Amino acid sequence: MAGKVFFGVSMSVDGFIAPDSPEELMGKQWMELQRWVFPLRFFRENLKLGKGGEEGRDNDIARETFERTGATVMGKRMFDAGERMWPEEAPFHTPVFVVTHEKRVPWERPGGTTFHFVNDGIEAALEQAREVAGERDVRIAGGGETILEYLNAGLIDEFSIALSPVLFGSGIRLFEGVDAGRIALEQVRAEHSPRVTHLTYSVRER
Amino acid sequence: MAGKVFFGVSMSVDGFIAPDSPEELMGKQWMELQRWVFPLRFFRENLKLGKGGEEGRDNDIARETFERTGATVMGKRMFDAGERMWPEEAPFHTPVFVVTHEKRVPWERPGGTTFHFVNDGIEAALEQAREVAGERDVRIAGGGETILEYLNAGLIDEFSIALSPVLFGSGIRLFEGVDAGRIALEQVRAEHSPRVTHLTYSVRER
Repeated sequence: MAGKVFFGVSMSVDGFIAPDSPEELMGKQWMELQRWVFPLRFFRENLKLGKGGEEGRDNDIARETFERTGATVMGKRMFDAGERMWPEEAPFHTPVFVVTHEKRVPWERPGGTTFHFVNDGIEAALEQAREVAGERDVRIAGGGETILEYLNAGLIDEFSIALSPVLFGSGIRLFEGVDAGRIALEQVRAEHSPRVTHLTYSVRER
Repeated sequence: MAGKVFFGVSMSVDGFIAPDSPEELMGKQWMELQRWVFPLRFFRENLKLGKGGEEGRDNDIARETFERTGATVMGKRMFDAGERMWPEEAPFHTPVFVVTHEKRVPWERPGGTTFHFVNDGIEAALEQAREVAGERDVRIAGGGETILEYLNAGLIDEFSIALSPVLFGSGIRLFEGVDAGRIALEQVRAEHSPRVTHLTYSVRER
């Protein structure tokens, strides 16, 4: 059985997942968007921030998302931002397929993350990811534009939103430009923690 | 003890609460946004659509929202659209304060709904609504612009969103133009039903 293709992001109540540019000052709101993640034991361990941290349902969900993922796909903008920020042991621990026009040999990081640079489009990147993921799932990690390309192409099976109690007012909207006439959703589940609401939807064509 | 000022709306996963214009063809998405409401026993009884209908948590939530409301405030656009569509026994069963420039004598409907036309702004309308609501709550019924005016003026204590599994792609966004730098949210509760996720947030100034 082939795995699913999914994405999972933190979103503000007004639908934003990031500030307009990585440099932009969105301090308070950005921190509030991600507030549920930072204290988690899984997050701290995975980003080598030190031992300890919170356990509980939020932590389980973060860990389950990681464990289901057999391969990762991301856009060039996410890779460029991450290349400067990730620790040497990048936090994916799977093959990562970067959709880009740049030609580059695979970049192997300690801990099982190898970045492959795919020059022939989102479908080719996904095909390669599916192959290495086997029965596990493929995560479309980001950014927003790349997620939307996959969604509008009908290539997403399921997605999860961690809806954080914050309003952005401006920034990058997750669903800006979504082909709403083609995409129907079904609720899969909703789980509430003190910091965030986890919403999962499956996707089908109308 | 004075009641709270709240609003409660159905919102799509991408943040829309209505199509761009009431005439616009948004058939499928609009029906999906409101799908959780139509079969409810409370909704059917309140709009005189006939006896019977579904009970359960969605129905309880719709009824609780109605029962907590001691007075209603709405904008002119919502009133104009509703005036043509509501049954003779309009579904509010409270005094309703319409924020408008139009001067008009109160319009009394059978069943306890009387529309009062307030010409001196949102704060005056709210003050009148609070007075008649007593210990019960004041509901800002809509539309989107009026809700946002109250939110940005710091006059909303709490709001509830029934998040429906549908994408709109375009239309009227609930939080378009929100003063995100001034408004902080706290999660109050989240409840999941098979059709919708009910999210409640309290509002405070940053």
